[in-house]
Amino acid sequence: SSRVWKASPGYLGGTPAAAQPRVIEPPKNILLVNKLRTPPVLEALDAFLRHIHEQHPTVKIFAEDKPDLPSGVNIWSPGPESEKIDLVITLGGDGTILHASSLFKSGAVPPVLSFSMGTLGFLLPFHADDFARALESVFEGKTTILYRMRLSCSFYDTSGVQIGGAHQGWQVMNEVTLHRGPSPHLNTIDVFVDGQHLTEAVCDGLIVSTPTGSTAYSLSAGGPIVHPSLSAIVLTPICPRSLSFRPLVFPSSSAITLRVGEKSRSSSGVSMDGQSSRILNPGEAVRVQASRYPIPCINRSSISDDTQDRKSEGVGPGKEDDWVRDINNLLQYNATFRSKALLRHSRI
Amino acid sequence: SSRVWKASPGYLGGTPAAAQPRVIEPPKNILLVNKLRTPPVLEALDAFLRHIHEQHPTVKIFAEDKPDLPSGVNIWSPGPESEKIDLVITLGGDGTILHASSLFKSGAVPPVLSFSMGTLGFLLPFHADDFARALESVFEGKTTILYRMRLSCSFYDTSGVQIGGAHQGWQVMNEVTLHRGPSPHLNTIDVFVDGQHLTEAVCDGLIVSTPTGSTAYSLSAGGPIVHPSLSAIVLTPICPRSLSFRPLVFPSSSAITLRVGEKSRSSSGVSMDGQSSRILNPGEAVRVQASRYPIPCINRSSISDDTQDRKSEGVGPGKEDDWVRDINNLLQYNATFRSKALLRHSRI
Amino acid sequence: SSRVWKASPGYLGGTPAAAQPRVIEPPKNILLVNKLRTPPVLEALDAFLRHIHEQHPTVKIFAEDKPDLPSGVNIWSPGPESEKIDLVITLGGDGTILHASSLFKSGAVPPVLSFSMGTLGFLLPFHADDFARALESVFEGKTTILYRMRLSCSFYDTSGVQIGGAHQGWQVMNEVTLHRGPSPHLNTIDVFVDGQHLTEAVCDGLIVSTPTGSTAYSLSAGGPIVHPSLSAIVLTPICPRSLSFRPLVFPSSSAITLRVGEKSRSSSGVSMDGQSSRILNPGEAVRVQASRYPIPCINRSSISDDTQDRKSEGVGPGKEDDWVRDINNLLQYNATFRSKALLRHSRI
Amino acid sequence: SSRVWKASPGYLGGTPAAAQPRVIEPPKNILLVNKLRTPPVLEALDAFLRHIHEQHPTVKIFAEDKPDLPSGVNIWSPGPESEKIDLVITLGGDGTILHASSLFKSGAVPPVLSFSMGTLGFLLPFHADDFARALESVFEGKTTILYRMRLSCSFYDTSGVQIGGAHQGWQVMNEVTLHRGPSPHLNTIDVFVDGQHLTEAVCDGLIVSTPTGSTAYSLSAGGPIVHPSLSAIVLTPICPRSLSFRPLVFPSSSAITLRVGEKSRSSSGVSMDGQSSRILNPGEAVRVQASRYPIPCINRSSISDDTQDRKSEGVGPGKEDDWVRDINNLLQYNATFRSKALLRHSRI
Ligand SMILES: NC(=O)C1=CN([C@@H]2O[C@H](COP(=O)(O)OP(=O)(O)OC[C@H]3O[C@@H](n4cnc5c(N)ncnc54)[C@H](O)[C@@H]3O)[C@@H](O)[C@H]2O)C=CC1
Ligand SMILES: NC(=O)C1=CN([C@@H]2O[C@H](COP(=O)(O)OP(=O)(O)OC[C@H]3O[C@@H](n4cnc5c(N)ncnc54)[C@H](O)[C@@H]3O)[C@@H](O)[C@H]2O)C=CC1
Ligand SMILES: NC(=O)C1=CN([C@@H]2O[C@H](COP(=O)(O)OP(=O)(O)OC[C@H]3O[C@@H](n4cnc5c(N)ncnc54)[C@H](O)[C@@H]3O)[C@@H](O)[C@H]2O)C=CC1
Ligand SMILES: NC(=O)C1=CN([C@@H]2O[C@H](COP(=O)(O)OP(=O)(O)OC[C@H]3O[C@@H](n4cnc5c(N)ncnc54)[C@H](O)[C@@H]3O)[C@@H](O)[C@H]2O)C=CC1
Repeated sequence: SSRVWKASPGYLGGTPAAAQPRVIEPPKNILLVNKLRTPPVLEALDAFLRHIHEQHPTVKIFAEDKPDLPSGVNIWSPGPESEKIDLVITLGGDGTILHASSLFKSGAVPPVLSFSMGTLGFLLPFHADDFARALESVFEGKTTILYRMRLSCSFYDTSGVQIGGAHQGWQVMNEVTLHRGPSPHLNTIDVFVDGQHLTEAVCDGLIVSTPTGSTAYSLSAGGPIVHPSLSAIVLTPICPRSLSFRPLVFPSSSAITLRVGEKSRSSSGVSMDGQSSRILNPGEAVRVQASRYPIPCINRSSISDDTQDRKSEGVGPGKEDDWVRDINNLLQYNATFRSKALLRHSRI
Repeated sequence: SSRVWKASPGYLGGTPAAAQPRVIEPPKNILLVNKLRTPPVLEALDAFLRHIHEQHPTVKIFAEDKPDLPSGVNIWSPGPESEKIDLVITLGGDGTILHASSLFKSGAVPPVLSFSMGTLGFLLPFHADDFARALESVFEGKTTILYRMRLSCSFYDTSGVQIGGAHQGWQVMNEVTLHRGPSPHLNTIDVFVDGQHLTEAVCDGLIVSTPTGSTAYSLSAGGPIVHPSLSAIVLTPICPRSLSFRPLVFPSSSAITLRVGEKSRSSSGVSMDGQSSRILNPGEAVRVQASRYPIPCINRSSISDDTQDRKSEGVGPGKEDDWVRDINNLLQYNATFRSKALLRHSRI
Repeated sequence: SSRVWKASPGYLGGTPAAAQPRVIEPPKNILLVNKLRTPPVLEALDAFLRHIHEQHPTVKIFAEDKPDLPSGVNIWSPGPESEKIDLVITLGGDGTILHASSLFKSGAVPPVLSFSMGTLGFLLPFHADDFARALESVFEGKTTILYRMRLSCSFYDTSGVQIGGAHQGWQVMNEVTLHRGPSPHLNTIDVFVDGQHLTEAVCDGLIVSTPTGSTAYSLSAGGPIVHPSLSAIVLTPICPRSLSFRPLVFPSSSAITLRVGEKSRSSSGVSMDGQSSRILNPGEAVRVQASRYPIPCINRSSISDDTQDRKSEGVGPGKEDDWVRDINNLLQYNATFRSKALLRHSRI
Repeated sequence: SSRVWKASPGYLGGTPAAAQPRVIEPPKNILLVNKLRTPPVLEALDAFLRHIHEQHPTVKIFAEDKPDLPSGVNIWSPGPESEKIDLVITLGGDGTILHASSLFKSGAVPPVLSFSMGTLGFLLPFHADDFARALESVFEGKTTILYRMRLSCSFYDTSGVQIGGAHQGWQVMNEVTLHRGPSPHLNTIDVFVDGQHLTEAVCDGLIVSTPTGSTAYSLSAGGPIVHPSLSAIVLTPICPRSLSFRPLVFPSSSAITLRVGEKSRSSSGVSMDGQSSRILNPGEAVRVQASRYPIPCINRSSISDDTQDRKSEGVGPGKEDDWVRDINNLLQYNATFRSKALLRHSRI
């Protein structure tokens, strides 16, 4: 493979920045999060439960309140009173981990271990079939954590007064989006950076994204791909009526305020991680800032099999950067033209 | 103006991230840097010298060795033995400050105060006519410094051995560029991030840029605009033969290695801040990393006139972010279509 | 001005392709189209009417049925029985001429003379204040016509049967857009070209645009600028979940079919020239083709003042291409960085 | 496959625009063109020759003068006196057909049948192994021809006088490129359309491309993909110093003049179909126009096997558009993110 790099010359040393090894305590309270309740998901859940009960009988398992909760699972709902969770396990698509993030939207998040049901994703390092090995690595304390930055939002009325009280912050993992939605009319949005007017955007919408979200909606809108270990905020326009509106990357200390123009012919719908959240009318604003509560994601590389052949590629155990593999495998990043590789059977 | 924001609602507070106020000692040794020697430049230089001699008679002034060095100026050339400079003053275009950076390419850089000759620029906060006020602010210790990250480079031969010894690092302020140059053939370049193979790029070239350089060549090649106070490395392809090669933004802890493919049909010319530096043949590589020596640039806002009307815009003194103004004024960022503003005389 | 080209070397000869001189008969039935009824618009309408009644008393004037129709104006509504119009005059923004186009959505369109109320636009060659000169040129038969291509649409149900009968074609001047609208879920749309499957698009939406529309929504979504005298169809994706979806330009003989994927999680809203027209559910399709009825637009250059200084630029009378001026003036096409042009008063 | 469209609903009928069936006379004089002389190419050439000699003994075969010309092949070189060729066969990569085009750079081109050596390409419809079937289709007169537009160029000195006489036109199939090449300085190029000044481009270079060339260099520089059956000219900037320089598509009747700015700090190298052709100094110009001599390319679909399963997809024999298949297969156009399709073995 073109990735094999036989010897390891000097310039190829170095530890990837993406993830930091971290010893975490064996979890006592685990929250299981899933959205779908299809047979395969329910089967996988059962297998999880059985495994944990057998291997770690003292561990308490929680889940959100849903109709067919398996026995031995305690009901959990977010709140100051609810029991402290020290590991979140998600099972499903990227939307499931976005949902898990939203359960901890006002404070710190426990480490998150994410499993997919057969499709991998940027936010889904593990396949459900591999749960035993992944779980045991966590119980043994052998994990690598990628702290994924989140953004917190607050809303303001036309006179600049915060709506909903000081606690109304909502943390997002991917992005906050303003969009004209069903309105046929363009949005006019004033953008402020740290209180300074940056520009008036006439567009379908605007995306304020984390590095994690840079491979989600922002990418589709033309934004750059930002490594998730960087602390930064990306501002990407959606279909701007301007030839010269380019994506911007700010330091994570910046506060971005988006204010629907007083004369804007349409309101703007706010989505947070893909969930419609509210409508902003002309003169109303949302302020977006780095959250104090990133989301600690357990990395694929942290528990990869030591006998795997990738090890021979000169990258030490636990050192490989999931992200590099993901943008190649999932996004088909820089897929080269196949002129050199066409197989005979695809001819004529 | 659309920038005026009468009251200052809560969400517009906050200190811009761009620049940090820093007290600097009154300079004792000043290095004057200019490239052109046109009459206006020489006149401006004279005025500078007179002003400094009159106001700060104990200050020593240095310049590079050039034919018509004004009297009272000491010759200076980079080197371990040369006198320690504690302020650099540049006079000319962006190229002049890039040149100043190259004079300190192997170590720390003193604060830099840059003047233009009538054209402003991203790297040129001050106009030569305003030199007296700008200089006095510096002598009074009232400055705001923007630490602009630099990149250091090292070169490797086909067997991965560093070329030119360990000290051969060269610091750039904008970018390192690989380009096929006059060769009609595409470059094939393997890109490694922290030792891991990222992709094989088939293209005219690749740019590894600082945030400062994100508004230079990288922007022309389609890269995002990155705020210069962020520590990050931008990788932007030049005319890639792929539909899916997007600009990438890495944390500043990443090391990017570009290695000309063994089978590449052409060599690759390396430019550093726009200066041709060397040719890389197939199998040879350059490694680019954040330098330990950023370049401390004195900001425009640090010495802006307190009576200025911009103050009324809700941004406190010394708080305005030059960069926001620059991308609007210089890049005409997001210049909106003029359909709303056409003047009568431009009709028919 | 940089546009002045003193001598006219050989390579600068040639007639612009944009518009063809055409003698049109003095109009007998004129349709006045306006959307807004603000005082300035009503005043301008009055002036028009007076002028026509005085100068061309035999001409009949029509308008759509609206509350405060001026006296001497006949009511007109689209239909096979309605009186034949031989000149359309629009007064208002770009939306007004789009509306005029929609009045002739099922057949041929008379020549259209468009006036703006102070803002110029791509579709608005004339300022209302200049109406007298513009009108007289038309009555004298001195016009240059730009035939702007239109697209016709037909809709199909999940079994491929046309909805609404064969006559249900609707002509658009700018574009047909499919968009997820308020749905948080991505659209999945199968694209067929002349019956052949081209691609499955997972995106916010898709735009099928005329060259005229290439400077409207398609441009905001990243499409190329296509000269309106070219016969071509542009397909531009809106926020596709793919790194490699580029705008495509087809010959005007192509038929583009967009079919909402059977498994698409959301329906798709269809807009025609910015007017919401219908919802397409999974399995339903729209087919877009060049219309047989382009819209003949009277060009600005056709009646420009012979004594104007632009004449000295080496472009003969009636030969200048409005479009070249428009993309420069209205879109600020290729606005160069102002580093060379900053005025003193914009400093510090 | 997602391309299979079982029934053929009304909206999927229609003949693709790409290629027109054309009866061509059985060829009498065939020109064989190849660039490489590697063993596989020489073997393939031998097989061609044998086949033609056996099946069509009266046909005369020509080739360019090269060291090891096979026996039975006549030497041919371009010129008014040279024997009339009525079929060109190329064997090699895209560069080979570009070379064939250059052999007929001043006049009409015979139909071209292109074979690849194992790699398909946009300009390479056939695989060398299939030569017998492809050739017989041609002799039977069953071909579909795609007329690929070419561009002709003429050069002008600083006073606007044509250089090299009126006959100096050179036809290109892909594009004419101006590029700063090895110069570190940006090019300043004035662009005129039909004699009218369009813009001043400050950039690495400019590409004037045919629709055929839209998938070559222009695509890498960010240009749209234009169907080769459209007659149009694409102008694509290479790394412009402007946020608002977008690709433009002109009708084929337009003449594009590129003139190196009088004050440009660097000369501009002209490449034609990837071959360096000349240097343009400040004030010199090149004028590019549609050539009267397109290049008739024999299409893959014209001779595809009637029993092939693609036939069942509702596209009649000979009707399939090679181009649709090519942008999918070769460019991996709109390759969707693999989140839905990851195979188990690519996990962990
Ligand atoms: N045109 C577009 O690209 C749009 C994208 N979205 C994205 O969808 C997200 C919500 O996701 P779901 O609830 O799963 O909705 P969904 O089921 O509509 O899926 C959106 C797609 O985005 C992927 N995705 C989500 N987060 C990602 C990330 N950080 N990096 C790479 N891919 C990612 C998902 O795997 C899925 O393929 C939003 O946060 C937004 O980023 C939402 C609307 C439009
Ligand atoms: N196609 C392009 O855009 C190219 C750009 N360059 C840039 O030119 C730089 C060298 O500059 P000079 O020696 O002055 O050469 P130069 O005289 O050729 O000027 C290059 C232009 O880039 C501007 N520039 C330089 N650094 C900038 C920055 N950080 N942000 C915004 N604009 C900036 C300069 O003001 C000037 O307008 C290189 O570092 C490279 O970034 C070099 C080659 C091609
Ligand atoms: N994000 C975007 O850029 C969007 C653009 N639109 C465009 O708006 C059009 C409808 O226009 P209005 O009814 O006036 O709605 P509107 O009042 O919302 O105006 C849309 C803007 O597009 C301009 N425009 C319209 N046609 C144009 C053309 N052919 N070339 C250049 N500019 C053009 C108008 O002058 C106006 O500035 C649609 O056909 C669509 O092209 C619609 C929705 C979103
Ligand atoms: N950065 C880039 O993308 C560059 C591209 N080129 C292109 O290379 C062409 C010359 O080709 P070669 O002599 O083979 O040089 P080459 O051996 O350097 O190949 C250039 C590549 O472009 C491909 N190509 C050529 N014409 C094409 C077309 N019409 N559509 C799609 N792909 C095409 C070739 O198959 C090959 O992969 C030039 O006409 C120019 O278009 C030249 C320089 C730089």
